[in-house]
Amino acid sequence: MAAQRKTVTLLEVNSTIRNMKLPAKGVLVSRAAEITQELQQGVPKPFKAVISVHFGDGHAMGMKPITFIRQVMAACFYPELLDSEQLPDDVRSRAKIQLQKCDGGSIGSYCDSSGLLHVRQSVSRYIERRDGGVPCDPGDIYITGGAQRALQLVLKMLVHSEGHSKTGVLVPVPSYIRFNNAVEEQGGVMLPYHLSEEQSWELEIEELQRALRTARGQKCSPRVLYVINPGNPTGQVQSRKSIEEVIRFAAEEKLFLMADEVYQDNVFGDDCEFLSYKKVLFEMGPEYFHSVELTSFNSISKGFAGECGFRCGYLEFVNLDPQVRRYAQQVNSVECCPPTPGQIILDTLMNPPLPGEPSYPSFTAERQASLDTLAHNARLAERTLNSVPGISYVPVQAAMYCFPRIHMPSRAVQRAQAQGLAPDLFYCLRLLEETGVAAGPGSDLGQREGTHHIRFCILIPTEKLQVVLSSLKSFHLKFTQEFS
Amino acid sequence: MAAQRKTVTLLEVNSTIRNMKLPAKGVLVSRAAEITQELQQGVPKPFKAVISVHFGDGHAMGMKPITFIRQVMAACFYPELLDSEQLPDDVRSRAKIQLQKCDGGSIGSYCDSSGLLHVRQSVSRYIERRDGGVPCDPGDIYITGGAQRALQLVLKMLVHSEGHSKTGVLVPVPSYIRFNNAVEEQGGVMLPYHLSEEQSWELEIEELQRALRTARGQKCSPRVLYVINPGNPTGQVQSRKSIEEVIRFAAEEKLFLMADEVYQDNVFGDDCEFLSYKKVLFEMGPEYFHSVELTSFNSISKGFAGECGFRCGYLEFVNLDPQVRRYAQQVNSVECCPPTPGQIILDTLMNPPLPGEPSYPSFTAERQASLDTLAHNARLAERTLNSVPGISYVPVQAAMYCFPRIHMPSRAVQRAQAQGLAPDLFYCLRLLEETGVAAGPGSDLGQREGTHHIRFCILIPTEKLQVVLSSLKSFHLKFTQEFS
Repeated sequence: MAAQRKTVTLLEVNSTIRNMKLPAKGVLVSRAAEITQELQQGVPKPFKAVISVHFGDGHAMGMKPITFIRQVMAACFYPELLDSEQLPDDVRSRAKIQLQKCDGGSIGSYCDSSGLLHVRQSVSRYIERRDGGVPCDPGDIYITGGAQRALQLVLKMLVHSEGHSKTGVLVPVPSYIRFNNAVEEQGGVMLPYHLSEEQSWELEIEELQRALRTARGQKCSPRVLYVINPGNPTGQVQSRKSIEEVIRFAAEEKLFLMADEVYQDNVFGDDCEFLSYKKVLFEMGPEYFHSVELTSFNSISKGFAGECGFRCGYLEFVNLDPQVRRYAQQVNSVECCPPTPGQIILDTLMNPPLPGEPSYPSFTAERQASLDTLAHNARLAERTLNSVPGISYVPVQAAMYCFPRIHMPSRAVQRAQAQGLAPDLFYCLRLLEETGVAAGPGSDLGQREGTHHIRFCILIPTEKLQVVLSSLKSFHLKFTQEFS
Repeated sequence: MAAQRKTVTLLEVNSTIRNMKLPAKGVLVSRAAEITQELQQGVPKPFKAVISVHFGDGHAMGMKPITFIRQVMAACFYPELLDSEQLPDDVRSRAKIQLQKCDGGSIGSYCDSSGLLHVRQSVSRYIERRDGGVPCDPGDIYITGGAQRALQLVLKMLVHSEGHSKTGVLVPVPSYIRFNNAVEEQGGVMLPYHLSEEQSWELEIEELQRALRTARGQKCSPRVLYVINPGNPTGQVQSRKSIEEVIRFAAEEKLFLMADEVYQDNVFGDDCEFLSYKKVLFEMGPEYFHSVELTSFNSISKGFAGECGFRCGYLEFVNLDPQVRRYAQQVNSVECCPPTPGQIILDTLMNPPLPGEPSYPSFTAERQASLDTLAHNARLAERTLNSVPGISYVPVQAAMYCFPRIHMPSRAVQRAQAQGLAPDLFYCLRLLEETGVAAGPGSDLGQREGTHHIRFCILIPTEKLQVVLSSLKSFHLKFTQEFS
């Protein structure tokens, strides 16, 4: 019986799952882990440690958490601390309020599947302040276990995988890879539109039109338009004009807009300002504001806190059909509820200490330090990358990544192909072996055919970024020499 | 333009989502919230507070968290406490180790999508101890944001919704409602098998055979058998013989076994013992142990800690085809990673304080108090329920619910039907209005046609359970009189 055929073999796996494209950087991540082990075992290497910048996780790279947030959490977990002199007064009063809002006074209890009511209310007031008073109803806010789950929730509702009515989803190239995976998981059809690297990664409306025309031949029904602003991995910030164009396009073509705005607090470019899709929509007048269907996403993993491990994000629905909302509720409720700790962090972020409160100075200083590091690092990256022949780089204005273009010698491309690797993955693997820097290949995120990019995170301590940049520079020169 | 048809109307919602059956108790939950508000506004009622026992959430009802766990968490969140005299030595050393295992020394960093490696290792050692040495590979453990997510992960992989190859899933009646929702969400076909109330809710193999025969007419391909042991809502504990029969049935019929074992630590019946499906499978010999495909589920929301709000569960795969495992990894990775706080709680539960450590006495006492309350409450419920004419009750041996059968006068059934309500929902709504007790209707969980049940949680402070039981008793007598 031992040699018998399994009940569930590859053929029995759900075909939409089988058709998902896995990020190739998996190889890189595994190899980075192996190298770390080898270093621990004393294997000699030309570097002392692996620096993993292929993902956006500041804490993992040594960025410090915001003290106020962590103090509030400690007191919520262990309420004995509510009476401890070790914590500032405002921390203790905040924690008390949080616990009063939890059923039974414990953050270990379940909450509503859409999140704790007071947190949804805080989010809605925050959005109103952000958007200069545009109204926001807490009933339109759903808190989820990370923004990725919020994206999945919307896709689950809207994406059909059946026959000719397969849902087409317009996605940027390059894009946030996990969004694409979530579309594939639902069996949707990806309709890629390219951002223009030549125009500082701008979103050009003609390209959206082209992508939509192409869709017509693909036996799918285009229904969703996904935009990322500020851009990941491209770091551009959309202007009001650009957002207006996108909204008009969505209105004309009857597309449901999904606006991924998780980097809204990470804008540092000169003369740049984050404008939410909702605010622009509102200011376009009732004709648009009462009709265009929009969902916006945000997360505690980004911004200045970078609390990735707690998995908390939220979405806001604008103009969702009330009958459809019922199903959102339904899909959401299958998952019980989002985790409480992240929700309390979210609430604390939406209600930072006020001037005069004991924690105001340290909170403000720590927040500024995080944002300053990011802005400083972006300038540092720009100076270095622009000095390397064979790397072209569009300076970023926001988010937390650099996405330089790597001009690879054709012999290097051939070598990569001979090994069955995407050229930029080949490049990243060599970079890792020789310098310990783990950057991600552009081929995972999407790029114009024949171009090659790498992505790395710059929300890391500056001294680490200096190592990343100098390693990349010397590696690139050596690599180019080797293959030219 | 304002009156224009929406882009996404009901018709555009994914049909598998549209076809999902929502728990009817939604009405009850909303009404309970309204009543709480009315009480706050001073509206006179025959009770002082709503007691929500329709779900299994001890903390919400006033059960206390385990101090040791919460202390470790507080120090992980706010590492300044690592040097505080306010926390015992063993708490501080545990927290230090936890932080060392997190990237960058912060629990705010991401981890692998399958969970923190050291937690997976702790789980595997725990399972080996539990099963008397049956080997467990940490590579077979996936940690998820709650056991529900683990169930969804497996269903996502295995359930097809396409044409004749729709996946049939054998589910018990009554069952855990969110599992059924998750099957519906994937477009699978539910194949109900009834547990025998007459035989103390036993799982009878003839009934599985009958359910499978019925499936043959339903144009689906039965591939999954879902079992809940200890039972929810029924509270029975399967004997070795019963588990062996189920395993043999799964082997013969080539079914993938999903064993929901989240109540494994909540067994209190005399002469009852929890045996895991994996242990029994192992002891049936290599012929079975190397062939039957099994996944087992567990959660930190149950047991004696009851930390529902942190969303952490795990699964273990046994005999999963390695090629299929790759897809499990893939589906899992779309969701980033499970939340860190719950993982650290899980790790702490798997490695409780040892004799001689400062926290050993309090941890042991608190755990015992929680389990004793449960056992005591079960006996209390049995005594009361068996004294009420018109209620028949199979005493529970495990888990945290009572599921008594309510004999409803036919006039009450007619009244309910006239209002378009399931009779037991009608009963629960009346119980809520008159006593403030919110119990759940059996019709949501499934029951034999013509029978009516209610479910309520007994892992709550005893004084609250006394109110629940006496309210239920007097209400039932009054209700029966009114409609007879």
